Amino acid sequence: MLVQAGERLDDLQRNGLRIIQSEDAFCFSIDAVLLSHFATVKNGDAVVDLGTGSGVIPLLLSTRASSLKITGLELNEVAADRARRSVEINALEQCITIVQGDLREMSASCAEGNPNLRASCAKGNLNLRASCARGKYNLVLCNPPYLPQGIGATSVQNTRRMARHEITATLSDVVSASAYLLSTGGRFAMVHRPFRLADIMCALREHNLEPKRLRMVHPTAGSEANMVLVEAIKDSKPALRVGQPIFVHENDGGYTAQILELYAGGALR
Amino acid sequence: MLVQAGERLDDLQRNGLRIIQSEDAFCFSIDAVLLSHFATVKNGDAVVDLGTGSGVIPLLLSTRASSLKITGLELNEVAADRARRSVEINALEQCITIVQGDLREMSASCAEGNPNLRASCAKGNLNLRASCARGKYNLVLCNPPYLPQGIGATSVQNTRRMARHEITATLSDVVSASAYLLSTGGRFAMVHRPFRLADIMCALREHNLEPKRLRMVHPTAGSEANMVLVEAIKDSKPALRVGQPIFVHENDGGYTAQILELYAGGALR
Repeated sequence: MLVQAGERLDDLQRNGLRIIQSEDAFCFSIDAVLLSHFATVKNGDAVVDLGTGSGVIPLLLSTRASSLKITGLELNEVAADRARRSVEINALEQCITIVQGDLREMSASCAEGNPNLRASCAKGNLNLRASCARGKYNLVLCNPPYLPQGIGATSVQNTRRMARHEITATLSDVVSASAYLLSTGGRFAMVHRPFRLADIMCALREHNLEPKRLRMVHPTAGSEANMVLVEAIKDSKPALRVGQPIFVHENDGGYTAQILELYAGGALR
Repeated sequence: MLVQAGERLDDLQRNGLRIIQSEDAFCFSIDAVLLSHFATVKNGDAVVDLGTGSGVIPLLLSTRASSLKITGLELNEVAADRARRSVEINALEQCITIVQGDLREMSASCAEGNPNLRASCAKGNLNLRASCARGKYNLVLCNPPYLPQGIGATSVQNTRRMARHEITATLSDVVSASAYLLSTGGRFAMVHRPFRLADIMCALREHNLEPKRLRMVHPTAGSEANMVLVEAIKDSKPALRVGQPIFVHENDGGYTAQILELYAGGALR
């Protein structure tokens, strides 16, 4: 039985995909859906999703191109196990591999004998060692925790807190690991909060990830942005394009045509 | 006669203001209008507009609060003279002073005996020396040239080239001068092109000007942004807000209600 007690099976509304989610842990939201459709994906890409949670991004991404090899990295063993079962329930084992591990171990220091990684590998996590190779990926995705520690209401539940606050990885950790894992010309795509935009731009530049595409996401046409989608290319020249804004809701509360199209299996326009 | 041969007198559509523009030099565009209404302005502010051209930004800004003391700095002596006459034609000499000078001389080195500034002052430009005091201003505005040298079509006319290309001042020059001129808590407001957004964010951070407000401007609702408005505060904590997008034209080519309201004397919403 792939779905366990305390879990539910949800329809991802795309290519018949289904996902197992915990009834009380952090569930994926529109952030992950938007990121999965915003990223530039090419046939045959080697992809890693950092902090994959229930595996929603690898699952959605698998529909966007052929011959993808997607790794979903997740720190939490319970979540990683759940994501693995979602991959199995969709018969996507050839396309998606879920690895339990810490993205903070995937950094430049990793190649120079990072003791944490050696400790992880010594525990027999050969998947992590194989996943952690410099320049191995064409595409890195991340829907990281948005809030620095100490800002905002802290969730009492541990898995929710880790998904929302920078407890297990900071923005700098994410960007540093991504730069290490990407080949030259490889793409980094992230969804984050606009209030961190200056931090994001400066962290990307610092790690030779040049911001190339950006889209703002607004709850309604008349409101401030509450999400930003950004794509950077490793070792590329500066030249950023800011696409049309994405509005999620009409003023009456319903989804906009843009979002309805996406949920009905269309592309992000 | 304040309006000279080869010039025309245009209506600014706000408080009866008029502006003298050259028939063949660079004329102000919607960029300057948006910036003038985007910036946070408070009664009694000491303001400087770097590269004021025909003086459109000081003129429009003069309508937004009371007891403002606005300096318009312009490198080109012909343009500075024209801006001075526009101030006179609107009887705003108590509010606006036009100074001929180079913003590159307004930097940290200025206080330590910048030889360029000393040369300018030796030529009797006492206005420039008075304008160039560290922390003198609450608000610095700039509608700078957008293009690094060597990018884009180069205008054959010198004044147009200087308005469009970074010939007389780079982004870094502008940000450095602004940081020097602002008091702690003072505001820097700029309109620029989105393709420079990462450069802008990093330059601001480097000079302790923290980006706090940002708005994207799109030609239509379905097109990429072609302008960005950004406001930074000197020595402030990080926390950026991205306001609702600004759309300039409807799909039929006419102005949107948002822009029509602005041109009819309303606020930027």
